[in-house]
Amino acid sequence: MESLGIGLIGTGFMGKCHALAYGSVKAVFGDVPATRLEVLCDVPGEKAAGFADQFGFARGTSDWRDLISDPKVDIVCITTPNKVHKEMALAALEAGKHVHLEKPMALTLGDAREMLSVAQKTGVKTIVGYNYLHNPAIAHARKLIADGAIGRVVHFRGMVDEDYQADPELAWTWRATKADAGLGTLGDLGCHLVSLATAMVGPVESLIAETKTVHETRPMGDGSSERRPVENEDIASALLTFEKGVHGVISTSRSAWGRKSYIGFEVHGTEGMIIFDQERMNELRLYQNRGPLAEQGFKTLLSGPAHPPYGQFVPAAGHQLGFNDLKVIEVHEFLRAIAEDRQAVPSFREALHFEAVIHAIAESSERGQRVKVG
Amino acid sequence: MESLGIGLIGTGFMGKCHALAYGSVKAVFGDVPATRLEVLCDVPGEKAAGFADQFGFARGTSDWRDLISDPKVDIVCITTPNKVHKEMALAALEAGKHVHLEKPMALTLGDAREMLSVAQKTGVKTIVGYNYLHNPAIAHARKLIADGAIGRVVHFRGMVDEDYQADPELAWTWRATKADAGLGTLGDLGCHLVSLATAMVGPVESLIAETKTVHETRPMGDGSSERRPVENEDIASALLTFEKGVHGVISTSRSAWGRKSYIGFEVHGTEGMIIFDQERMNELRLYQNRGPLAEQGFKTLLSGPAHPPYGQFVPAAGHQLGFNDLKVIEVHEFLRAIAEDRQAVPSFREALHFEAVIHAIAESSERGQRVKVG
Amino acid sequence: MESLGIGLIGTGFMGKCHALAYGSVKAVFGDVPATRLEVLCDVPGEKAAGFADQFGFARGTSDWRDLISDPKVDIVCITTPNKVHKEMALAALEAGKHVHLEKPMALTLGDAREMLSVAQKTGVKTIVGYNYLHNPAIAHARKLIADGAIGRVVHFRGMVDEDYQADPELAWTWRATKADAGLGTLGDLGCHLVSLATAMVGPVESLIAETKTVHETRPMGDGSSERRPVENEDIASALLTFEKGVHGVISTSRSAWGRKSYIGFEVHGTEGMIIFDQERMNELRLYQNRGPLAEQGFKTLLSGPAHPPYGQFVPAAGHQLGFNDLKVIEVHEFLRAIAEDRQAVPSFREALHFEAVIHAIAESSERGQRVKVG
Amino acid sequence: MESLGIGLIGTGFMGKCHALAYGSVKAVFGDVPATRLEVLCDVPGEKAAGFADQFGFARGTSDWRDLISDPKVDIVCITTPNKVHKEMALAALEAGKHVHLEKPMALTLGDAREMLSVAQKTGVKTIVGYNYLHNPAIAHARKLIADGAIGRVVHFRGMVDEDYQADPELAWTWRATKADAGLGTLGDLGCHLVSLATAMVGPVESLIAETKTVHETRPMGDGSSERRPVENEDIASALLTFEKGVHGVISTSRSAWGRKSYIGFEVHGTEGMIIFDQERMNELRLYQNRGPLAEQGFKTLLSGPAHPPYGQFVPAAGHQLGFNDLKVIEVHEFLRAIAEDRQAVPSFREALHFEAVIHAIAESSERGQRVKVG
Repeated sequence: MESLGIGLIGTGFMGKCHALAYGSVKAVFGDVPATRLEVLCDVPGEKAAGFADQFGFARGTSDWRDLISDPKVDIVCITTPNKVHKEMALAALEAGKHVHLEKPMALTLGDAREMLSVAQKTGVKTIVGYNYLHNPAIAHARKLIADGAIGRVVHFRGMVDEDYQADPELAWTWRATKADAGLGTLGDLGCHLVSLATAMVGPVESLIAETKTVHETRPMGDGSSERRPVENEDIASALLTFEKGVHGVISTSRSAWGRKSYIGFEVHGTEGMIIFDQERMNELRLYQNRGPLAEQGFKTLLSGPAHPPYGQFVPAAGHQLGFNDLKVIEVHEFLRAIAEDRQAVPSFREALHFEAVIHAIAESSERGQRVKVG
Repeated sequence: MESLGIGLIGTGFMGKCHALAYGSVKAVFGDVPATRLEVLCDVPGEKAAGFADQFGFARGTSDWRDLISDPKVDIVCITTPNKVHKEMALAALEAGKHVHLEKPMALTLGDAREMLSVAQKTGVKTIVGYNYLHNPAIAHARKLIADGAIGRVVHFRGMVDEDYQADPELAWTWRATKADAGLGTLGDLGCHLVSLATAMVGPVESLIAETKTVHETRPMGDGSSERRPVENEDIASALLTFEKGVHGVISTSRSAWGRKSYIGFEVHGTEGMIIFDQERMNELRLYQNRGPLAEQGFKTLLSGPAHPPYGQFVPAAGHQLGFNDLKVIEVHEFLRAIAEDRQAVPSFREALHFEAVIHAIAESSERGQRVKVG
Repeated sequence: MESLGIGLIGTGFMGKCHALAYGSVKAVFGDVPATRLEVLCDVPGEKAAGFADQFGFARGTSDWRDLISDPKVDIVCITTPNKVHKEMALAALEAGKHVHLEKPMALTLGDAREMLSVAQKTGVKTIVGYNYLHNPAIAHARKLIADGAIGRVVHFRGMVDEDYQADPELAWTWRATKADAGLGTLGDLGCHLVSLATAMVGPVESLIAETKTVHETRPMGDGSSERRPVENEDIASALLTFEKGVHGVISTSRSAWGRKSYIGFEVHGTEGMIIFDQERMNELRLYQNRGPLAEQGFKTLLSGPAHPPYGQFVPAAGHQLGFNDLKVIEVHEFLRAIAEDRQAVPSFREALHFEAVIHAIAESSERGQRVKVG
Repeated sequence: MESLGIGLIGTGFMGKCHALAYGSVKAVFGDVPATRLEVLCDVPGEKAAGFADQFGFARGTSDWRDLISDPKVDIVCITTPNKVHKEMALAALEAGKHVHLEKPMALTLGDAREMLSVAQKTGVKTIVGYNYLHNPAIAHARKLIADGAIGRVVHFRGMVDEDYQADPELAWTWRATKADAGLGTLGDLGCHLVSLATAMVGPVESLIAETKTVHETRPMGDGSSERRPVENEDIASALLTFEKGVHGVISTSRSAWGRKSYIGFEVHGTEGMIIFDQERMNELRLYQNRGPLAEQGFKTLLSGPAHPPYGQFVPAAGHQLGFNDLKVIEVHEFLRAIAEDRQAVPSFREALHFEAVIHAIAESSERGQRVKVG
């Protein structure tokens, strides 16, 4: 396998996460092409240069078009604010580069559709950063469902919360605007939950929803008494009908004190139940209506080598994977897809469905009625 | 305080629970009228006599009208199937007896309204068996909210599940019919959750909802291959708007494997969060955005004498109350209300709101649109 | 079955607990003799009379000898401070009354031995208040072990803690003296843990131990600066060798902040493990090395009718028993033993072993070497 | 800062962990010298070459002396079986290389002492792989104790378990021999717990202990009926006296079904308690006797940027570090120590104390009496 050159745009939260993942994926997995960390982009240029040194990239640049056009770059990773995803992704696609894009794809569903359309025309590989999908515990939940461990799925419930917008006096930022941020908690958190709901139950057919802006204005944070309106939702909830006819409920809040990275869900089946919570990401809870009643109960499965690809990281069970390890698995999926000339999962195509759902939630809330997804 | 004579109709699950509570309430609390266990009603008469002996009632009868008309009976406890609640309650009210009625009040909202109307005319005291409301942990949650411990409430989520109808091959019974059982999981479980939601956030103004019959038919359980339709819902979910403008989500299932007595909810505030789960009924979880960030976290409050009236049962913290103790607290509230000549809480009036909500959920699901409660 | 008259000495924590249990045991279980609450003793007489009225006893007395000699009294319940257990128990035994004694039996092992000897001579029935033994979850743990669910037992660990002596500035009381209280945390808490250890693994053969008085002096609580020495231990730990050759570790503290009623233990077997914690007394955790590795994990068994006698209290699983319910089960065992003319468990005989272990712990710590139990 | 060349001996569990850590430490932390992955050693040579390619080392070798003598190698990482630690470490020290050694240092305490003595003479930097010490949650526990958050420490309890030797029919290996493995569970697991106990309470002064070989023989695993003896302990427990006069209890088992990476401990103080469990390594539980009694409880602190150096990995709280991240923090400590020309923690000096404790446990068990540590 030929080595692949990496260009990474962004050095923040997810930027560092990408850098670490592309830097260690071969050591972890072995069965992927070697990666070359070629170009790192941020502004200003000194910042790019400094992080290039820290992260181990060959060079830094302040010009993302320069990064995309660099012939040494085979894969373009986009970890910038959502607002510029579309422009950068289209440029990379048109340059024939594989695209690793952080979620959500774009501010509007129309933009996301256009991006998929271009990607399909160019034929390059894409992947979107729905990293929680790559948790071995989630993979095992899917396997359990596929194997019939809980019978036929009849119900889904999920919640995803953080508290980064819980403080009523937190200063107003661009995150509060539709123009710059698009959706609120739905775009930041809700779409992750949808990705997991879909992994468990399949695509969503239609929904009824309600969203709420809990903190209607925020101070400017400059000492003045001015407060500006928050244009997007803090909380959103929806009643889902999955294509399989299953009924579901989801809810998300970015203003939920105490919730740091809560992504909890439960899958109800005719023979059991599965429960997961990302704040204890190495645990999966399973109930099965088997054996003597006196010995039935929820079992906590602690991730281990029996839950691939956990064993690539640690050969002993229960030792715990971390958040950054999920990105390594995501990158592994992407590199394998490129090596095997197939689409990765989730590519722009799957991601589009996740994002169609969150936009349908916003639309249903606005129109006060059931909305078909897609 | 004069002693009060108790007449109890029903000797099953809740019947025994009532018998135990009326038999021990004075020993536990001291500050209530003495109770005389006078008449126990069940059919046939031998069963009534046998349980009268076991439960310590003076006599048994197979005729509930006989029980109601007995001049020694001051309080009539009704723990029979929902279908006959109305007839018995009306008879007791008209005989001028105080009524302790198990939930739900009746099969239809119209019947429940009529019952309240009669109760208000007669002026007797009523209480409805929303026993989870009486948990000291719940009382403490209300106090915390009232004291501003989590700031202004901005969101509510709740779930109530059991698994008594989870087995697809469980035999068909009258519980599956609208005529005999009325609502499904909403009437059995959902109304309990509504009682708690209301205790936390106040009355519900309107809602959008969806219900689902997961197991559409059931075998007759007689060896034949016949299957009969299940007419009422196994699962129901709703998006609530509380009168205070707060947005909520609730969901209930009687077909949720592994859930034995799950009544979980979370109350989101602008300064913290409260979480409760009836399956760990002696614990309340509290997050407050106070003190150094490094020391913030969900705190588990284990019920103790600091959470009245826990200390009436055990003077040492953490020793655990049980399900039957909640009924003792409920009976205490009822006896105190009678002694103080005030209405108990929840009387027919409060209970009517809880039940208006579950009927609104059923109606919204049928009509596919938002429904105003009440 | 003839009815049995109850005489209860003490109206405090355990006194009330006994009153409630004897008052409801027949209603709960049915299969026991009726109980008559005859005499309640406390000082002064007005207190006895007041509680007699509250608890439903026929009369109160300030003279415990009067209670014992009352011919209407068949069972004498002793819930007074440990110091007077012996005198009262011997008097009751000699009067030919059945004795229900709160733990520990006496301040010294010699006294306890003497009490057993007298009880065996008189042939009456005895039971000692090791109430945690009667938890359905504990009964199920015993059944699991007996059925080989975790293979051969190879190790035991247990801890029992409260925090009623955790505050260094708590006032000095008689509890701090050897003369009035005897042992410290071992007598209050440790012996409960030993009762459970023995239930899981059988008798203890020998041990090495260490005790510690953490708060060496305490203020008098009268505003003076005087501090008096604490003569007995706050913390004790021991390495046990059970008769079966199993190695165990136990530890107890009455000065453990945050622990309210913590009695935690784990039983390690060659095929699995069982874990219990009294602060979640309706849960038992079970691991079995069976089935696919990917589906092995600790299962939480929530107590229900499949765990007798839970179903006598509530016919639905997961609804929770409480602390006071354990005493009802204990009383049931005692009344059944009397009705069947057999010794109850744990009678003075079994209790003597539990208490021999805690005295051996104190002795080992003092002598700095291994001590044989008994 | 000049870059440092890394030589790594071993490619198994901990070998891979070292490779990942040295490969990513600069990207994570920034403030360390760059690392060059120079030589990787394993046998046979092809294996070394293969892993060198996968892990990103410049070359592989089958000769560890060749690795040590390579002038490009500044730091020698030793992750081989315990039996050869001493020989390799001494060779590296004598070559003037910094030594990063996996725990335990050696099979015997005498060997470990000799290694420390040589290290002190050469003046190079050493660190021993007590990786759990580097958990931000552990660092926070230390800070809380130092800040007086739980008052004066009065008691410590700890347990460390896995189940890799729980199956009685697992085949016999060199791990069962004193000659090749030295101690059993004490060397594998117990010393980790001691490192944490010491971090919380300081050095151990003396102890009484007991060890047990639960599975006395094991089959050869070759189909024959031969069974060979297990020479070292499966379980060990000890009563500790810390130098501060604090009483502690620890216990360890390598035969504890269900325990995958359990390292649980609790620190009791005069004003609170701290609880930790490595199987939930991102959580720390804290009880403080502060504020109203009704609001006291154990608080779960979820690791976040407020707990350094968590924020170097992820800037958002609750996202979870994993096992491999702990090694990155350990390597950071080592590289900073080298850059600052100071000893790292834990160097051979601190590690020697941890290992003196486990050898004292073995000795106390053998001699049946109290043993002074060191």
